[in-house]
Amino acid sequence: MREVYVAGVGMTKFGRWETKSQLELFGEAAMDAINDSNLKPGDIEALFVGNANGDVNEGITVLGSHAAAEVGMNHPPAIKLEGACASGTIAIVNAFMWIASGYADIVMAAGCERNTVTPTPDATRLMNTGAHHRYEAGTGITFPGMFAMMCHMYSHKYNIPVPQLKEYMCMVSMKNHKNGTKNPKAQFQKEISREQYYNSVMIAAPLQMFDCCPITDGSAAMVLCSKDAVKKLTNKPVQVVGVAQASSGGLSTQKDYTRPIAREISVQKAYKMAGLTPQDIDLVELHDCFTIAEIVATEGLGLFDFGKGVYGLEKGETQIGGRIPVNPSGGLKAKGHPVGATGVAQGYEVVNQIRGNCGARQVEGAKIGLTDTLGGPFASVGNIIYKRGW
Amino acid sequence: MREVYVAGVGMTKFGRWETKSQLELFGEAAMDAINDSNLKPGDIEALFVGNANGDVNEGITVLGSHAAAEVGMNHPPAIKLEGACASGTIAIVNAFMWIASGYADIVMAAGCERNTVTPTPDATRLMNTGAHHRYEAGTGITFPGMFAMMCHMYSHKYNIPVPQLKEYMCMVSMKNHKNGTKNPKAQFQKEISREQYYNSVMIAAPLQMFDCCPITDGSAAMVLCSKDAVKKLTNKPVQVVGVAQASSGGLSTQKDYTRPIAREISVQKAYKMAGLTPQDIDLVELHDCFTIAEIVATEGLGLFDFGKGVYGLEKGETQIGGRIPVNPSGGLKAKGHPVGATGVAQGYEVVNQIRGNCGARQVEGAKIGLTDTLGGPFASVGNIIYKRGW
Repeated sequence: MREVYVAGVGMTKFGRWETKSQLELFGEAAMDAINDSNLKPGDIEALFVGNANGDVNEGITVLGSHAAAEVGMNHPPAIKLEGACASGTIAIVNAFMWIASGYADIVMAAGCERNTVTPTPDATRLMNTGAHHRYEAGTGITFPGMFAMMCHMYSHKYNIPVPQLKEYMCMVSMKNHKNGTKNPKAQFQKEISREQYYNSVMIAAPLQMFDCCPITDGSAAMVLCSKDAVKKLTNKPVQVVGVAQASSGGLSTQKDYTRPIAREISVQKAYKMAGLTPQDIDLVELHDCFTIAEIVATEGLGLFDFGKGVYGLEKGETQIGGRIPVNPSGGLKAKGHPVGATGVAQGYEVVNQIRGNCGARQVEGAKIGLTDTLGGPFASVGNIIYKRGW
Repeated sequence: MREVYVAGVGMTKFGRWETKSQLELFGEAAMDAINDSNLKPGDIEALFVGNANGDVNEGITVLGSHAAAEVGMNHPPAIKLEGACASGTIAIVNAFMWIASGYADIVMAAGCERNTVTPTPDATRLMNTGAHHRYEAGTGITFPGMFAMMCHMYSHKYNIPVPQLKEYMCMVSMKNHKNGTKNPKAQFQKEISREQYYNSVMIAAPLQMFDCCPITDGSAAMVLCSKDAVKKLTNKPVQVVGVAQASSGGLSTQKDYTRPIAREISVQKAYKMAGLTPQDIDLVELHDCFTIAEIVATEGLGLFDFGKGVYGLEKGETQIGGRIPVNPSGGLKAKGHPVGATGVAQGYEVVNQIRGNCGARQVEGAKIGLTDTLGGPFASVGNIIYKRGW
């Protein structure tokens, strides 16, 4: 396989964009990444766009082709991919393959989503389409419901009473909101207090509003290149050293909600490919769609032993400046979660951290970063490991 | 790049499946392909599923993951791709890259769709989502409308009056329906007469019902392998020697509806990669979503000069037994068009033709076959060239 590098990245501000379509948001992020890579749109040889709900939310299919045309690319192969919340990471994994194979030299992976157009009841129904449509969707299961069950199972398995677990979940929420204050592209740039956390509305016990990531519009983009190509484009290349994905089916395919099986398979493949271990990672952007999801992910990714993530969190090890900073961008919780864009936005953060571009939220000396996205009923996981180039 | 081969293929009967879900149809085709490849589901290292409208038609997202679980695969990377009617071909192109790169050895590309669940007015609205949603969808443009314009433009450009062009279009319809009678998996297995053609209901002048492909449910699957892997699995390997894709945006990005730009870019790349010319091709499965589309595609693919496709058709050159048989399977017109499955079903036909498995519709001596799929407002085209192995 040929080596694959990131030449440049781009991202819109995340938030509520009432007057911009998905294609316009894509266009902003794509041009940002193209400019950052010292390229022109016509140089992009293939385009991958992660998008989960655009056909329902905006009534648009063949999104990849329309996206390529939106910024004046030269009729490249253009592909929309969907793996629910993991769609953006899947776009990067596939862009990687086109370069690794030798078929192309310069490929864009992007993601975009415009979810705030959909009122909450419809959004709940729409998200619910990720559940197994024959056996589980009809039970009324929702994503907050799934992750609430994850809380209860974690509490039971590790003998941590729910009120105590809530204290840890509050720490995740406060940490990520604090990180968000340092990210000018985050949807929320306000710290929250313990009181605000506990006073927020109950969503699915024990998950309250501040345990849940928001509904978000936004886009992110990344230009991936062969080694020869990247040398001409940037003096701050970042290498993609590990890419992996894995799947599972409906919730009934899980043995233990606190250990989504697809994550463990995927991340081990990524570490193996990169020749790295969790101890080598300098920072992580992971899928904190709910606060409990961050705790569970830090364990599944091998940053902490199973059942010990809460204690590392309590010691501040996942804060910026801690042993292994998690979600310095603010994560899904504060930066926002425009579904199809999320995996690419995680890459945007890690690449900028490795380049030393992150200002107030910079992780000192960051050379290697890991991303993690989780889609559907724990059904699709993608992991990517980025490493500073030469 | 490593060489890539087809180890096996599978397909459901195409038609109206009232009692089977998309996942069940996928399962049938996938197991058919896995058995044909002398494999077990757990051997599949990655899964690509082309699907265009499943989230709307059946309310299901993360389809790739659910599909992998449906047949008991071992948590592979699982990816849904969408490029409207080209989705299935896009699945094959991407499966190719995973093997060509060396990342995987055995990958499945599949497609499935269940479109007959959607009543015609909703189906029209759903298909319309392929149009540029801001500038064109709102005009009320439909796919029959686009291809009707293609007829008028072809008529005007090549000075063939519409009634004369209709005679050629009737030949396409009769040919493909006749081929369909020889395909036990075709949706329609009845010949049609000239009288039936002309007596059918007008859809979008000059397109009548027998100019239009049907709405179809079905699935098809293909197992792609590295050279080392395929040697252990079959003694009838078929090599994938050319893969290409290209895109364009809304209709406004086309200069000439009779020559969709993405097709010309894509097929030239496929020929170049394969080191072949149109004269080397023994049979073609192409995108006859409407009869005029077949005529235009035979020209865009280089089988006939521009404006001359109708004359080759008239001479019988595209019939089974002719110089270059087109759509021996019955094509979209008679075999049916389950959107996301179509590109893979084209591959199923070509692979079986190259293996000499096609009985009454066998193209004698077929060694090299080309497929062509066209998605959206001529916005996404994929081409694949298959060649008999050793």
